[in-house]
Amino acid sequence: MKIIVDAFGGDNAPLEILKGSEWAVKELGIDILLVGDTEKIKSCSSENGISLDRMEIKQADDIIAVEDEPKEILRHKSESSMAIALKALSSGEGDAMVSAGSTGALLMGGTFLVKRIKGVRRPAIASVIPGTSNPFLLADCGANVECHPQMLLQFGEMGSIYMKNILGVQNPRIGLANIGVEETKGTDLQISSYELLKESSLNFTGNIEMRDIASGLCDVVVADGWTGNTILKMYEGVASALLHEIKAIFMKNAVSKLSYLGIKGGMSDFKKKMDYKEYGGAPLIGLRKNVIKAHGSCDARAFKNAIRQAVQCVNEDLVADIEKNITVTKNGENEND
Amino acid sequence: MKIIVDAFGGDNAPLEILKGSEWAVKELGIDILLVGDTEKIKSCSSENGISLDRMEIKQADDIIAVEDEPKEILRHKSESSMAIALKALSSGEGDAMVSAGSTGALLMGGTFLVKRIKGVRRPAIASVIPGTSNPFLLADCGANVECHPQMLLQFGEMGSIYMKNILGVQNPRIGLANIGVEETKGTDLQISSYELLKESSLNFTGNIEMRDIASGLCDVVVADGWTGNTILKMYEGVASALLHEIKAIFMKNAVSKLSYLGIKGGMSDFKKKMDYKEYGGAPLIGLRKNVIKAHGSCDARAFKNAIRQAVQCVNEDLVADIEKNITVTKNGENEND
Repeated sequence: MKIIVDAFGGDNAPLEILKGSEWAVKELGIDILLVGDTEKIKSCSSENGISLDRMEIKQADDIIAVEDEPKEILRHKSESSMAIALKALSSGEGDAMVSAGSTGALLMGGTFLVKRIKGVRRPAIASVIPGTSNPFLLADCGANVECHPQMLLQFGEMGSIYMKNILGVQNPRIGLANIGVEETKGTDLQISSYELLKESSLNFTGNIEMRDIASGLCDVVVADGWTGNTILKMYEGVASALLHEIKAIFMKNAVSKLSYLGIKGGMSDFKKKMDYKEYGGAPLIGLRKNVIKAHGSCDARAFKNAIRQAVQCVNEDLVADIEKNITVTKNGENEND
Repeated sequence: MKIIVDAFGGDNAPLEILKGSEWAVKELGIDILLVGDTEKIKSCSSENGISLDRMEIKQADDIIAVEDEPKEILRHKSESSMAIALKALSSGEGDAMVSAGSTGALLMGGTFLVKRIKGVRRPAIASVIPGTSNPFLLADCGANVECHPQMLLQFGEMGSIYMKNILGVQNPRIGLANIGVEETKGTDLQISSYELLKESSLNFTGNIEMRDIASGLCDVVVADGWTGNTILKMYEGVASALLHEIKAIFMKNAVSKLSYLGIKGGMSDFKKKMDYKEYGGAPLIGLRKNVIKAHGSCDARAFKNAIRQAVQCVNEDLVADIEKNITVTKNGENEND
């Protein structure tokens, strides 16, 4: 098993990426193909005592920045570490690819360099989110700002396969994010998607109201990219603002600081449960090979977990399973087939 | 000043509505016109020792239920307490109207019985949300699932006037809810709305990312009804799920229970700050008279605060101010003008 790593993606590259890769080699017994500036990779490794055992380096002269337009990965940034890593994946130099770089560029590069699975209309960015009762997959998280119903059906199908294969959930419950539970709620998109999901072979449990999403009443929450991104960012934003406020309450005075000791264990378990870093990164589902987007600000542990997730996707044959089970509609062929 | 009250709207009607009305009479020195079944109002009041001092009753034989289709308020439910209250408002029997009943019906009734301010394309449901640094107004919260850019401009204008007149915010900061800060982010709706807001005389501070909304970086967050409803419900859902989890941590054992005592005061201040009941209800902005939607599960205090809010809207001449300052575009006339 060989995982291709974009060594120059993300806020903490290359240091945390290299540390995470070293950790993954040790923990998972895999090989890694690092893509990026060879000299910088070597000097960063030696300065920080990182072993490059079981890792090869593939030279890339350029870097794609977060502020670069996504399409630049196909144009002026076609020699960036991300572009070269994706091309290496496409030509079979490794089994999966992990990057903490620009989501837009990774999506654009994934779609055009790695290409979609036959019949998949659009790849989705999926995220495993730690709900309070169980983790759930949200798809799409922002790859496709505007969607049509067949895309939402496919997000549900791909999400269901992901949760079954990677998280071991039997018969995943699929919910459609909506502003009410009734079939007639939402815009035309939700109303038509509801019909398609209901008629599918998925375990579709109907609309899930936004206020219930955090509790994890579903295993897969289906949404267009605009709504999914809103859900994801509201989730992160509200959780972070509230925890910040609660922390301030504990830090107020000596008594409150002392009180913290009594619940420190519980809070630490809770934080671990709610920590996205435990789940690795966001898979780009629907591509011919597995591409994992690690969080832009990920540290070594989160990056290592994203590599672990990539390994699982390969081991569980995610791509083949999606190819076999996706509903291909009459107009569902994509241009690269 | 006379406020018209739908005595049979909401989960806790008529008891909490009557208690809240009695409280409002005492605290605010206003008159109230209760609309509903006279016998039931009288018996509920006498059984619970509620004084009907300074209150008149206007008979309504019917009730509109949450599960009724909104349009029924104009058809089979035209004799419901909500419909009669709105007609009484329209014909000048009171200065403002408050209901805790069905939002959809109130919006439909408000639009067709009270009618829109000249030039207002669509009324919006606005909610004052307790952000962690300051409260902010979110408009629209779900009245208009599909919007066009001129509507979003007007939501910003009406929201700005509301925050200035009712919450005393000087030069309110207006933000457009979006998935990124750049002008080019979002769907066509956000991109065009951004242009309109930027060219307006509002204190437009640009796009506000969903993850920053909870912190209250703006005074007014502008969104289409679909997105606004998603934001509102995610806010409520995530906050409630997290607080539930944190409560469970404190209830775990004797030590953690004891720890709670040390931060009880701080938590109680925090809960008060985050409590929507303090802000009353959600105004339907853009109508010719003030209509306030109280929370469906409101208690006497929340309903009293919604009445206080209605009184403020009248005192501050909200409707006249909106009429004077709204941007009326060429096609912006509505059908009732």
